[in-house]
Amino acid sequence: MKQSIFLWLIITIILSSCNSKSDDTKTGPLLDPTLQLIGDAPKKKIRTVGILLYDGFATLDAMGPHHVLKEMMGTNVFFIAKQKGTITNGGGIKIDVHRSIEDVDSLDILVVPGGFKETYLMTKDTAVLNWIRRIDKTTTYTTSVCTGAWIVGAAGLLKDKNATTHWFGKDILKNEFGAKIHDRRWVRDGKYWSSAGVTAGMDMSVALVANIMGEPYARAALLDLEYDPQSPIEGGSEFNTDKETVDMMRKMYSTGMEEVKLSLTKRPKVEAAKLVSFLDPVCKMKVNYATGDSAVYKGKTYKFCSKMCKESFEKDPGSFVASK
Amino acid sequence: MKQSIFLWLIITIILSSCNSKSDDTKTGPLLDPTLQLIGDAPKKKIRTVGILLYDGFATLDAMGPHHVLKEMMGTNVFFIAKQKGTITNGGGIKIDVHRSIEDVDSLDILVVPGGFKETYLMTKDTAVLNWIRRIDKTTTYTTSVCTGAWIVGAAGLLKDKNATTHWFGKDILKNEFGAKIHDRRWVRDGKYWSSAGVTAGMDMSVALVANIMGEPYARAALLDLEYDPQSPIEGGSEFNTDKETVDMMRKMYSTGMEEVKLSLTKRPKVEAAKLVSFLDPVCKMKVNYATGDSAVYKGKTYKFCSKMCKESFEKDPGSFVASK
Repeated sequence: MKQSIFLWLIITIILSSCNSKSDDTKTGPLLDPTLQLIGDAPKKKIRTVGILLYDGFATLDAMGPHHVLKEMMGTNVFFIAKQKGTITNGGGIKIDVHRSIEDVDSLDILVVPGGFKETYLMTKDTAVLNWIRRIDKTTTYTTSVCTGAWIVGAAGLLKDKNATTHWFGKDILKNEFGAKIHDRRWVRDGKYWSSAGVTAGMDMSVALVANIMGEPYARAALLDLEYDPQSPIEGGSEFNTDKETVDMMRKMYSTGMEEVKLSLTKRPKVEAAKLVSFLDPVCKMKVNYATGDSAVYKGKTYKFCSKMCKESFEKDPGSFVASK
Repeated sequence: MKQSIFLWLIITIILSSCNSKSDDTKTGPLLDPTLQLIGDAPKKKIRTVGILLYDGFATLDAMGPHHVLKEMMGTNVFFIAKQKGTITNGGGIKIDVHRSIEDVDSLDILVVPGGFKETYLMTKDTAVLNWIRRIDKTTTYTTSVCTGAWIVGAAGLLKDKNATTHWFGKDILKNEFGAKIHDRRWVRDGKYWSSAGVTAGMDMSVALVANIMGEPYARAALLDLEYDPQSPIEGGSEFNTDKETVDMMRKMYSTGMEEVKLSLTKRPKVEAAKLVSFLDPVCKMKVNYATGDSAVYKGKTYKFCSKMCKESFEKDPGSFVASK
């Protein structure tokens, strides 16, 4: 009977999660009266989960944990940004964020998603790092997805701790922020949980739900999400992908990272601000930094995200700007 | 050498994807000059991927394919809604959508994500269904995630076709829309691709990338996403979860679906419009439909998403409304 009540409860909540949630800015109530119906009560009371967003975050780094952690009944899962307003991510998605870091002074779970260039820039943002240190004093879990671990590391929270991050980001997490790196989908060191790249945040989140609500609850949530992943192609880690691909990608990521670091030390601030509005005419991506890849066509200067785009442009510039 | 150029190309693009994309509303150019450097050219030219959003869509149904398909170079992946503006999803996420169905008259790939109640309501929306039929005439692939297949099915496009959907939604897809159901993570029938629930949309999207760009390209994308999923708990399908959990959840989903169908036939329009603003005082969720679960406390009527919330409320109403 207890089992039936437990399941009824789970399913009612999961069903309800199919409805639009309110945008209530208050802390969601933990449903103690209904929770008491469950044989095994949750091990931890998790009322608030805050996911830190910033321009350039990687879509699934944030959305994976959002959806999975939202399966926990009575838990408010919401986004937070340095300033309220629209956050535009690495995939061009525009999200309205209604809480700034000034609005949030405690969280049960902090989730810091990753990205690439913008994520590294966040490791230099004193206001954000101070906020993370302050919030960390209140959390039951402080977590990261992918290169989000760089930011948590920059706040000094992963020094000498066991952690992981996107496979490319491990050297930076170790060398710049002092973490002990592990080659796993997710790693826990006390309340500090970190996950490998992008999609690993979902595996970590499932483990969090199981840790908080118990495995029977997590299993019901998995069924709602139909999370029985079967990649149609083998790969996805540095250990099951051919070495040439891994080495080349690592080299290319490194080149990109060198550009970011260079931009931090050398770019004149005024020029950097102007450059934000440059669009690569080939791939239509925003060029955020002075990469040095530029070309002049019909008296106008064009900026490129890469040498490859520049070369494509120079072969036939008319095809890229003719329709403008 | 070709291999190196190919990898350089992939990685340059993937690196670039870490930058913010422009919100260019025009069709993205297919990078023919650079694509020609690849030994094996893409099998299909995919310039535009449109993901249909609506209030109540499930987060990962849309965000999984968005992130994975965005890994294809030269491809614009964007959201479309019935009307431009803010779309609020099932998890309370607010997304700015800049293209309405009136703005879009062709797509290379259409993706229709699922949800629950709101998804079923979309199967009755003639304007949206007519748009899907029109767009389908232009697509290279017409795809669905989870219960999104109900909408594609309601447009008449899956009749007598092999397809799948969320495990709960299979009966509806078969009985109401005439599809031939398969128990797989994703199913293709010519250009019609469908996936099982929520997270299965990522597996389908990886298969699409491999189908379009070739396996070597897809493998590089997998490495960028670190997509080597390892769920910490076994489960996630109706076939590897204990029967009691599956049966109970199916029963509860069915109860929810009965409410939706009832609301379509019986609810007075005026009352329904008023009810949208009701918040369940226990779980703080919006109550969208007249479910019949209500209670009066201190002269005021409260509405509930479920009997469980109502019961919790009645045990101690003061704890849920005292702070208001």
